[in-house]
Amino acid sequence: MKEIKVIAFDADDTLWVNEPLFQQVEHKFCDMLEDFLPHHSLSKELFTVEIQNLKHYGYGVKGYILSMIEAAIKISGRTLNIDAVERILELGKDMINAPVELIDGVEDVLKALQGKYRLVMATKGDLLDQERKLIKSGLADYFHHTEIVSEKNETEYTKLVKHLDIPPHQFLMIGNSLKSDVLPVLNIGGHAFHVPFHTTWEHEKVHHEIVHPKFRELSTITDVLQYTL
Amino acid sequence: MKEIKVIAFDADDTLWVNEPLFQQVEHKFCDMLEDFLPHHSLSKELFTVEIQNLKHYGYGVKGYILSMIEAAIKISGRTLNIDAVERILELGKDMINAPVELIDGVEDVLKALQGKYRLVMATKGDLLDQERKLIKSGLADYFHHTEIVSEKNETEYTKLVKHLDIPPHQFLMIGNSLKSDVLPVLNIGGHAFHVPFHTTWEHEKVHHEIVHPKFRELSTITDVLQYTL
Repeated sequence: MKEIKVIAFDADDTLWVNEPLFQQVEHKFCDMLEDFLPHHSLSKELFTVEIQNLKHYGYGVKGYILSMIEAAIKISGRTLNIDAVERILELGKDMINAPVELIDGVEDVLKALQGKYRLVMATKGDLLDQERKLIKSGLADYFHHTEIVSEKNETEYTKLVKHLDIPPHQFLMIGNSLKSDVLPVLNIGGHAFHVPFHTTWEHEKVHHEIVHPKFRELSTITDVLQYTL
Repeated sequence: MKEIKVIAFDADDTLWVNEPLFQQVEHKFCDMLEDFLPHHSLSKELFTVEIQNLKHYGYGVKGYILSMIEAAIKISGRTLNIDAVERILELGKDMINAPVELIDGVEDVLKALQGKYRLVMATKGDLLDQERKLIKSGLADYFHHTEIVSEKNETEYTKLVKHLDIPPHQFLMIGNSLKSDVLPVLNIGGHAFHVPFHTTWEHEKVHHEIVHPKFRELSTITDVLQYTL
């Protein structure tokens, strides 16, 4: 671990709460459409539309709003009342303007690591939305650099490490997603710590155990300090 | 001009055609709603909603689709048929998946400047959408670096120049928008060339003449070579 020079943090559900916001909105979406289908089927339909649309819209809240509208029309067999579309647009704006809730311990960890490592925020999603959350979080000053990408894969991590001007083994990524924050980083020769969040988006789930010398499974973000101070 | 080391190009309506795509879609939007209002009033209503929503959605095609849906509902006095919403979603996906049409002369200019300057693409808008257009354009290999920001202002240009590790007077920005590509760059001490596109989005229009030693008004992208070779 002594070789690490740069520590990068994922943002959504690593620095601040995100997935619960989506789940609350999904719950309201299901309430709105419960005359058509039971809740679990509505969630499944929405998920299907969301995944199909990833190739068009990418990650983030605007694509999610568009997918909710599309799914609602489909689920209703095109009988949807226009007020429901208006309500979905409002739910979307509420999400965009929601306050940012930091995850316990995050600020203490950043404070403790500041000056000892170059700290980076590396996230995917909507550019404007993530920039805005960073500002609202009050954490912006801790980061030497922030990187918002459309997909967190080996290509993008290779670019990031090159851009940071370090060899991959000096890079540590910390995040809640094995798929986006851990596996591609280990594959390019970096270190990765997994800090699970209590809830994970279905699309980010990985169903196998990881054993790797540069990998650590932590229970909270504060545990990062055990390996880095 | 001899001091210039890095040449940055705006993308939409500088490297490739963009605004006409939006205008074609706007035309279809107006056709769809012409029972409610005349075309010019529809365009005005859509523009109003778009600008109001910039603070929520930022620039780019997804925000535009959401604004079209919102505007259509408003214009119809909430009597809009759900099929119209479906049609708008389709128009949006068509825009996202539209082929990229290069502006005449662009590739020749990049080819001529390659190796003589560090070439950068600097644009605002939707991250995934701009990345995808760059790939489809076939121009990606000409650029040493691409920067996609949520707003092109002095702060962002200062960050870019710092990131490129040059003083501002070694930076030249080329683009079709006086507001986004020229004024903020001149203000931070860089060079800027304006290459007008035949049509400009209302929001990007600037109504005064610019006289500045580091500014050139060109008629086509090919004229760039007169000052840089």
